[in-house]
Amino acid sequence: MSKHLKHDMDNLHREILSLSARVEEMIDKATRALSERRYEMASEVAAADPEIDRREVRIEEECLKMLALHQPVAADLRRIATVLKLNNDLERIADLAVNIAERARSLRDHPEFPIPATLREMVTLATQMVRAALDAFVNLDAQSARQVLSLDDTVDQLNVEVINQLQDAMRESPDAVAPALYCFSASRHIERIADHATNIAEDVIYLVEGDIVRHKNVAAQMTR
Amino acid sequence: MSKHLKHDMDNLHREILSLSARVEEMIDKATRALSERRYEMASEVAAADPEIDRREVRIEEECLKMLALHQPVAADLRRIATVLKLNNDLERIADLAVNIAERARSLRDHPEFPIPATLREMVTLATQMVRAALDAFVNLDAQSARQVLSLDDTVDQLNVEVINQLQDAMRESPDAVAPALYCFSASRHIERIADHATNIAEDVIYLVEGDIVRHKNVAAQMTR
Repeated sequence: MSKHLKHDMDNLHREILSLSARVEEMIDKATRALSERRYEMASEVAAADPEIDRREVRIEEECLKMLALHQPVAADLRRIATVLKLNNDLERIADLAVNIAERARSLRDHPEFPIPATLREMVTLATQMVRAALDAFVNLDAQSARQVLSLDDTVDQLNVEVINQLQDAMRESPDAVAPALYCFSASRHIERIADHATNIAEDVIYLVEGDIVRHKNVAAQMTR
Repeated sequence: MSKHLKHDMDNLHREILSLSARVEEMIDKATRALSERRYEMASEVAAADPEIDRREVRIEEECLKMLALHQPVAADLRRIATVLKLNNDLERIADLAVNIAERARSLRDHPEFPIPATLREMVTLATQMVRAALDAFVNLDAQSARQVLSLDDTVDQLNVEVINQLQDAMRESPDAVAPALYCFSASRHIERIADHATNIAEDVIYLVEGDIVRHKNVAAQMTR
């Protein structure tokens, strides 16, 4: 890798990690808005979104500039293409955080509905996955990326638990239907955050090992 | 654009349109499995997924090869970067079709539960959006891409209708909770297919006009 390209790549990594930190913060606030009923945090999440959008566009432009300027091949080219993809994933994760915050706001009208504690567990794991997937990318660490994949199964199991709890609540009382559906949506959003982290991890493994793992989880997806 | 690049780009367009046609077929089958209770179609959808995955990988490799070989700049570079992104969207749409098919299978155990007719409307629109977004890309037609964006609002409205119908069913009978939740998931999957089509359309507008519309729908997302 040329010195100039390495310099630009280091910058890109810094920007990606900084974007990821902001997105993780949004996920954290969105779920605290939900599980601790700290509704002021929901507004903070929505307010942070335009900044994420601008950063995503900037990183994409940066990638295109690097492609045009350095005309990289082989591993360097693949690395920049991976940034294009994971940048997209990060932006969609931020959108999901906004959606979770929105569900938290809707739940304000149902103060009596208990939010399943498992949701909080799910979100802790999903946030860890996002961070670990990005670190694995920067360090080109396929082993850490594989650990992210294994965490996804745990998130899916927790999601099933949440859904069962919500179903029980809805069966017991018609009044629980509306708030339980908001929780159901939030739980799916968290699951999708974990899915995006999984996509990033799969891209990292492909980048490092050339092994296409990203389509080997189809059977697992089917059971959800 | 050089003759060789044009030749490769034409091939790429053909592959993308052919992938899109397969994915649209999967969406159609998945929702017929659901709404017409034609469960054998659910298996066909799942069986088609590995082919889509292979095609996605091939198109991505094709893009990287074109970047390395032709070292395109400006509009050509941006066009190939757009293919990298929409290829990803198409593959995820196929995954959503598989998820819908899976919900259809789960509903087999609840033959008495009426599937809302609105779901079928939603899916017709979402499939149209996918096709129109891809056509807009190939023809570099920003106007058609903007029409896709406007359809997304209609899909969101239909989704709200479906959710209301399902909530009513759940409030009336505890037995309806499980099947209604499967429908609820399917409805969200269809909504997400429309979201992916919207992402593609937004990328097309950016490609053609340089106008970043992809983050102007945040307000609309918040109301869902």
